[in-house]
Amino acid sequence: MSRFLVNKYQSLEPYTPGEQPRERKYLKLNTNESPFPPSAKAIALAAEEAARLMLYSDPECKELSAKMAETLGVSPENIIMTNGSDEVLNFAFMAYCDESTPAVFPDITYGFYKVFAALNCVPYREIPLLSDFSMPLAELLDAKGTLFIANPNAPSGMLLSLAEVEALAKRDPSRIVVVDEAYIDFGGESAVSLTKKYGNLLVTGTFSKSRSMAGARLGFGVASASLIADLHRIRYSTNPYNVNRMTAAAGIGALSDTEYFKENCQKIIEARTYLARELSALGFTMTDSKANFLFVRHERLSGEAVYKALREKGVLVRHFSAPRIKDYNRITVGSMEQMQTLARVMKEILEETK
Amino acid sequence: MSRFLVNKYQSLEPYTPGEQPRERKYLKLNTNESPFPPSAKAIALAAEEAARLMLYSDPECKELSAKMAETLGVSPENIIMTNGSDEVLNFAFMAYCDESTPAVFPDITYGFYKVFAALNCVPYREIPLLSDFSMPLAELLDAKGTLFIANPNAPSGMLLSLAEVEALAKRDPSRIVVVDEAYIDFGGESAVSLTKKYGNLLVTGTFSKSRSMAGARLGFGVASASLIADLHRIRYSTNPYNVNRMTAAAGIGALSDTEYFKENCQKIIEARTYLARELSALGFTMTDSKANFLFVRHERLSGEAVYKALREKGVLVRHFSAPRIKDYNRITVGSMEQMQTLARVMKEILEETK
Repeated sequence: MSRFLVNKYQSLEPYTPGEQPRERKYLKLNTNESPFPPSAKAIALAAEEAARLMLYSDPECKELSAKMAETLGVSPENIIMTNGSDEVLNFAFMAYCDESTPAVFPDITYGFYKVFAALNCVPYREIPLLSDFSMPLAELLDAKGTLFIANPNAPSGMLLSLAEVEALAKRDPSRIVVVDEAYIDFGGESAVSLTKKYGNLLVTGTFSKSRSMAGARLGFGVASASLIADLHRIRYSTNPYNVNRMTAAAGIGALSDTEYFKENCQKIIEARTYLARELSALGFTMTDSKANFLFVRHERLSGEAVYKALREKGVLVRHFSAPRIKDYNRITVGSMEQMQTLARVMKEILEETK
Repeated sequence: MSRFLVNKYQSLEPYTPGEQPRERKYLKLNTNESPFPPSAKAIALAAEEAARLMLYSDPECKELSAKMAETLGVSPENIIMTNGSDEVLNFAFMAYCDESTPAVFPDITYGFYKVFAALNCVPYREIPLLSDFSMPLAELLDAKGTLFIANPNAPSGMLLSLAEVEALAKRDPSRIVVVDEAYIDFGGESAVSLTKKYGNLLVTGTFSKSRSMAGARLGFGVASASLIADLHRIRYSTNPYNVNRMTAAAGIGALSDTEYFKENCQKIIEARTYLARELSALGFTMTDSKANFLFVRHERLSGEAVYKALREKGVLVRHFSAPRIKDYNRITVGSMEQMQTLARVMKEILEETK
């Protein structure tokens, strides 16, 4: 940190992404990437676009927004496309939180919410998840401020039903509710349809997981036209060309390939079922995850011991040090073959530590 | 705007990018894009990377930063890579301006500085350019706050010498000086070398213009390691994966192709010389531009008349409505062929309006 940095950022604690080691070939199950390549259509359109990079991308992102709107059954005026869904989430913190409107989110959830609050110098309130990591619905219903709810939640993978999300939006029309659906495609029901009914609801999503495009950086927000106009106003004051040409083209390709998308989601769900069964048999308990990861705890080994032993054997998972979840690891659900490898390695570890 | 938008953004006036019309094939000389495609190496590497989009981009941007550092003769710790240079400029406003440290910039310069100041709710002071649009150096030398200097300046294209930039950095070591070198490769001398000597100097650059990659969104900042650490701290609290895989790969390709880069810059300089001569012969006066655009005023026709007449004939240039520059148009310098077309069209217009 330099002596020039303004006061308000001197104590900023940035988000820590999962490790991206280079020194060795790991089985990487720590950042919830997809094991499958992007759609062939996405690859082809992105590659083709590389030759046209001398021209700016469309600041209105018209073609992609139209395709996204069509896919989700809304209008283009209900869509904003962003450089990853982190960008639309940050815009929401900017637009809808201030000194008198705190951000409100569970104590255990996507770690970036807290960072966005700090970055934007807005107060935030963490509401503890219940002891089984389920959402504290009663408290959330009555909370004042702007709600940020990851659904499914991370790192638990636990899901709110559509009726529960609707209850949150309905309760207080003067309060914005942001539903972060990064993992919705692996077994949840999206709240996008509710944005037509509730002008205070913003749903965000990403192409990173279910559409295998983490490296392309493409996210989106869906809401009433007036909320989307707020977010565009901030986008045009931040980075009007936020989505590059290749990523926009890849997004159009991905949205044109529904079959591949659905197939991949189904494969992840099957691999998740398989892995849950295997790990349960090995003495793990876990939350009921509807995401592309499992959140698991062993009856005998500490969370850190499991993390380290797996790492030693070339498997990376995500371990968090926060007190309430330090006994757990978050394991990305990859291909069936990767899950078989993980189960085999885990068996070895349990044998060796008997 | 919704009723939910926080007070501080209700009066935000977003940046207006140049028009990107779709309805007709224009000769587009309004957004300073390059007429040349990106380097074949950039295209090939970006296209290849499209197949690996399921993996996140490297949040440290290691390989690209190393290549950039090598190209500029600094260390990787002196480099930050961003989603366009607008992103690093915004980070600089965040990191180095606050209530007691206003942003300071000329009254006529890149229009986004004012927007960044508003976005970050920091005060700013505009120092008028002299009547010939040259920099008010004496006033800038003594200004308190964080300086933002586009060099060459936009839309005048006028250049400060390296000695003048050095004087600004040297004058007050307790003041940050940001030099925005978006257009430096078309005839200016970069201040990057000065960042080794002045810990308060941040130089920003972009791949949009001289490297034909406007649609890829790639910018960078160069400064002392401690300033760069500040900017990374903000980046990791905003969007750690800000540069996508394809753009990072394209950047590496572009930096590997020095010859193509130099050739293209040379071609633009030649086309600029040609266009300046042609337009002068037609009754235009202009600033001494060292950028890939000319800033021109006609002895008889108003700025708006020239803009409209050109548009009518299928040529888009950029007209600004600010009082001091409303008589001017900014014309992107494209290929020699494009400049010949423009000169021919301009001749027609002058004939027709005699």
